[in-house]
Amino acid sequence: MSFNIDLNYIRNVIFKLIPPTAQLTRLEFEGPEIAIYVKNPAFLLEQTGIISQIAKTIKKRIVIRTDPSIRKRREEVIEYIKSIAPPDTGIEGIEFDDVLGEVVIKAKNPHIIEEKSNQILVYTGWRPRIVRAPPMRSKVFEEVMHGYLSQSEYRLNFLRELGETIHRDVLLAKNGSNYVRVTFLGGAQEVGRSAILVETAESRVLLDFGLNPGRSLSPNAFPRIDLLNIEPDDIDAVIVTHAHLDHCGLVPYLFKYGFRGAVYTTDATRDLMVLLLKDYLEISEREGTEPPFTLRDVEQMLLHTITLKYDVVTDIAPDIRLTLYNAGHILGSAIAHLHIGNGFHNIVYTGDFKFGRTRLLDRANYEFPRVDTIIMESTYGATEQPARDRAEDELIRIVKETYDRGGKVLIPSLSVGRAQEVMLILADAMKQNKLPKIPVYIEGMIHEVTAIHTAYPDLLSKELGQRLKSGENPFDYETFIRLEGREPRTEIVESSEPAIIIATSGMLTGGPAVEYFKLMASNPNHSLVFVSYQVEGTLGRRIRDGAREVAFVNERGKVEVIRIKMQVYSIEGFSGHSDRPQLLEYLRHIEPKPSTAILVHGEKNAVMNLANEISRSRKRLGDINVLTPKILESYTLAYNI
Amino acid sequence: MSFNIDLNYIRNVIFKLIPPTAQLTRLEFEGPEIAIYVKNPAFLLEQTGIISQIAKTIKKRIVIRTDPSIRKRREEVIEYIKSIAPPDTGIEGIEFDDVLGEVVIKAKNPHIIEEKSNQILVYTGWRPRIVRAPPMRSKVFEEVMHGYLSQSEYRLNFLRELGETIHRDVLLAKNGSNYVRVTFLGGAQEVGRSAILVETAESRVLLDFGLNPGRSLSPNAFPRIDLLNIEPDDIDAVIVTHAHLDHCGLVPYLFKYGFRGAVYTTDATRDLMVLLLKDYLEISEREGTEPPFTLRDVEQMLLHTITLKYDVVTDIAPDIRLTLYNAGHILGSAIAHLHIGNGFHNIVYTGDFKFGRTRLLDRANYEFPRVDTIIMESTYGATEQPARDRAEDELIRIVKETYDRGGKVLIPSLSVGRAQEVMLILADAMKQNKLPKIPVYIEGMIHEVTAIHTAYPDLLSKELGQRLKSGENPFDYETFIRLEGREPRTEIVESSEPAIIIATSGMLTGGPAVEYFKLMASNPNHSLVFVSYQVEGTLGRRIRDGAREVAFVNERGKVEVIRIKMQVYSIEGFSGHSDRPQLLEYLRHIEPKPSTAILVHGEKNAVMNLANEISRSRKRLGDINVLTPKILESYTLAYNI
Ligand SMILES: [Zn+2]
Ligand SMILES: [Zn+2]
Ligand SMILES: [Zn+2]
Ligand SMILES: [Zn+2]
Ligand SMILES: [Zn+2]
Repeated sequence: MSFNIDLNYIRNVIFKLIPPTAQLTRLEFEGPEIAIYVKNPAFLLEQTGIISQIAKTIKKRIVIRTDPSIRKRREEVIEYIKSIAPPDTGIEGIEFDDVLGEVVIKAKNPHIIEEKSNQILVYTGWRPRIVRAPPMRSKVFEEVMHGYLSQSEYRLNFLRELGETIHRDVLLAKNGSNYVRVTFLGGAQEVGRSAILVETAESRVLLDFGLNPGRSLSPNAFPRIDLLNIEPDDIDAVIVTHAHLDHCGLVPYLFKYGFRGAVYTTDATRDLMVLLLKDYLEISEREGTEPPFTLRDVEQMLLHTITLKYDVVTDIAPDIRLTLYNAGHILGSAIAHLHIGNGFHNIVYTGDFKFGRTRLLDRANYEFPRVDTIIMESTYGATEQPARDRAEDELIRIVKETYDRGGKVLIPSLSVGRAQEVMLILADAMKQNKLPKIPVYIEGMIHEVTAIHTAYPDLLSKELGQRLKSGENPFDYETFIRLEGREPRTEIVESSEPAIIIATSGMLTGGPAVEYFKLMASNPNHSLVFVSYQVEGTLGRRIRDGAREVAFVNERGKVEVIRIKMQVYSIEGFSGHSDRPQLLEYLRHIEPKPSTAILVHGEKNAVMNLANEISRSRKRLGDINVLTPKILESYTLAYNI
Repeated sequence: MSFNIDLNYIRNVIFKLIPPTAQLTRLEFEGPEIAIYVKNPAFLLEQTGIISQIAKTIKKRIVIRTDPSIRKRREEVIEYIKSIAPPDTGIEGIEFDDVLGEVVIKAKNPHIIEEKSNQILVYTGWRPRIVRAPPMRSKVFEEVMHGYLSQSEYRLNFLRELGETIHRDVLLAKNGSNYVRVTFLGGAQEVGRSAILVETAESRVLLDFGLNPGRSLSPNAFPRIDLLNIEPDDIDAVIVTHAHLDHCGLVPYLFKYGFRGAVYTTDATRDLMVLLLKDYLEISEREGTEPPFTLRDVEQMLLHTITLKYDVVTDIAPDIRLTLYNAGHILGSAIAHLHIGNGFHNIVYTGDFKFGRTRLLDRANYEFPRVDTIIMESTYGATEQPARDRAEDELIRIVKETYDRGGKVLIPSLSVGRAQEVMLILADAMKQNKLPKIPVYIEGMIHEVTAIHTAYPDLLSKELGQRLKSGENPFDYETFIRLEGREPRTEIVESSEPAIIIATSGMLTGGPAVEYFKLMASNPNHSLVFVSYQVEGTLGRRIRDGAREVAFVNERGKVEVIRIKMQVYSIEGFSGHSDRPQLLEYLRHIEPKPSTAILVHGEKNAVMNLANEISRSRKRLGDINVLTPKILESYTLAYNI
């Protein structure tokens, strides 16, 4: 371990501020944090503000770890925790991480036991890691937790090495020579394969690294990092804004080719990412296509992922600090703020964002410490969306009418976000007697995603998070029925009972939604309700556009023609993206004002349209330089070279 | 040697068109050309159009080479050539290149013997290479000639390997997936270190690779290819537009770090480049600074240089064809036209250019087969220059007035271009009796450059070239006196005779001009006449701006203050660059119209000013997309990826 100048400074501050009675034994990097190993953590109870004081002084996050010699026996620790935990903590499990000296406490109400963290650490010698036990069980959530516990040693080594890399001596930038260059590897004048390379004299960071779901076999499916002479291990870090595959779908591919740096994202995005990537691999296998990475690479990715909370500043490279902010798009989605070279340049990358409230999330954050350049999505740069209230009313009206004529409703839905919103809308309408209490059938993968929502109340809207923390589960309404396997589908459709079915995929490209569609299509009483955008080339789009006969190859290899007699509706206004007025409003509200806006993640028409509108709106938005990159273009945002 | 599909096609065409009596023995790549080895070249005399027919069909340049077995003895060859050469050929030497089977004939009037080329080839078995023997001897010119003769074997191997690289199988582009990306490594919003990287799916080509003469020790002196993860040997070719160091000054540096591809330029640029680079190395040595390359690297560069004539199309990479056109800037200066991917995209890179006649050169070419993007210099993007006639009149007036009061004239001058122009202006004025026949003293390096001018009449203006070819030497006027060494300087200044002195450097940063200045400064009868731009920070600039006292450290290390009493003049209007109206006129005249103009090679103010003016002149110039790159920026000009 080579201590550079920075670390010497850090050591001095810590030695001065930590009381000698703490018996400090070691200092270690642990990823972006500094781990302080002590033999006597009792000072934490007396001098409560000391850790935040150190953190503030050295501008690093601090974690207190204990010397193994002071860690009490497991039975004793479990007994102690149980004895001090108030009954409503709802402890569901206690596990031990020997490598880190952490005791993992799974609790229904983590905030209750969190208050006793220091007390547990001082008394047991084990640092409590308190994890929310979600009201709904999520397989992925549990797998991820277990994965970290079983690979604790590998992970600690990774974090230590990463810490040294992050805090390495800066070379070029020391001579006052630095630059910030962004290159668009994908997602430029297109939607899909979002990937932006940020380069400075010291570091290389990727903002997203997605795939192009529409073009999985052509070269157009991949971000074109291959054309830049850059190897994956030249990259310092990958920042994933959210779990949609067009933003994270090829992160495992980087690990396949030697990337061993950190992936920074939120807790929820990590879990959703694992779920969606595994689903992608399963679909590839089922369809017999060769995926560009394997399960092993997904696991590698997970092992190298560092999750951040919203609004917390973290060093990710010698000259780059990252902060994630709520993006309002889907659970865990983030706007990434890069503070480069001590104020040399500041970038806000919105990822996909919604500047408007939804049932699940608050509107995107728009206040930042500094902004020079904003890189903004433009999906709806040319489109105004109907108001959300009207969309909700329309959904309820359609369900009601279908019920009244004795039909059933099929809602093909994306598993993340849209399905959960529809659940909340239906539950609310039933509670308020706008709808009768119709059974709502929810297929497997959606349920898994919903469970992940319940694990992270801090990442949901304040209101929804509050309800979850107070013990309510808004996703667990009395009419909701979870389904697994294919058996009861025919029964549900053929029964005389009313039914609403929420099933993936949202564009009828596969999944249970297609099976329901086949069973329901011929009955004019039933309704098919699209609640999301239907991409060109999908079955959903063909039907939405008026097709009334579709052909399938059935299980015996025969072509089966299905005549569509059920009612077809398409509701707009549920999008998780900001529409054109919201994009413009965002530029009007963002604080402080960026001097440059770079438009990405939109079809060419949307990007150009929005660029023109921004240039025309000088009066309202201020003088902002608008750029519309093409793939492989690089802009130099700041330089002294 | 691996014959790819293209070469098979080429073989077939050649086998079909070459008569069997030719006794074809071998086909070889020779750089961009195809060498056809025959035992019986007699067919050339009968079927005169056959070579151009083959060249047209396969779109490659052809060179006929002979089988060594048929080459006659040297004495016999010399005798034969002398016997058939008309007396006014002016043969000055005959040498032999055994490797290529070429007989090098140096002649005063090469066009006379050129007509007998085929006859010599058929009769002697040696291919004549006819070289102009310039009316003034140039050391560099002779060194270059000798260098190629002595390294003929290395050179032939290089050309064969290069040929295989140029004609290699295309991989990506075959799938219809290609792109054209330009990256500005220097010379963007600045003057100096011009360097543009052009990348396609198949190739990487550099347009110029200059240094920043003003900043020879900082990182800002170099084009920043180092920041792109590209090694010199990843580059296919370097195109040098002209010999100024801000365009070619770091080409040897590429060879130092492993580049072994071809450098494409004109004959005159090659010679001037060698001269100026050697001069740069000598100055570095004298000043004790460490140059970024050595003489060895300059020699390597020379060995890998392929010269092209104006207007001739040449393959330089599997998907790139290059044509050089007259740029009107200095002797040998070229506008580079890149025809990429069979019409996928066409780039015109102006280098430095003059859209207006000068004493030496015709105005820049403006008609091209195709143009999509023009990359244009903008040195005078914000400035209008006085008319050339007025500048010439002013120069003559100042000389006359100085003469009338018994003073002498010092004209500090760049060695390339400006000095030769001033010589022609003065000679003309004296011939026309606008000036008395005053002795004009010309210092060494200028004379060397003038000699190179006389070697390439085809690269000068039609009128000047014609005069040279007809046997006149316009640079050899009766009042011109060539000086070498420092001895006679004091005598010239102190004699009672009138005198005009043309000496380098043009900005009084060193060279004999400074020595004359010291000798002449105190006499109010003398005149100092600047005829070129004076860069910020130079002695010339200080004096032009009004300084009347300057300090030097003399040879004994003492500070010597010189009071300036001589008259100081600065004449504008001699620039080799297009001024603002000429830049705009060029965009109005260029055929066909590019859709995009990228402005480089200008201070930020000049570039931005010109960009605004172009955008404002839609009516006159058409709808043209104007881009103003910063260093390290990349634009994707065309893509399907
Ligand atoms: Zn998204
Ligand atoms: Zn997206
Ligand atoms: Zn999206
Ligand atoms: Zn020049
Ligand atoms: Zn130049």
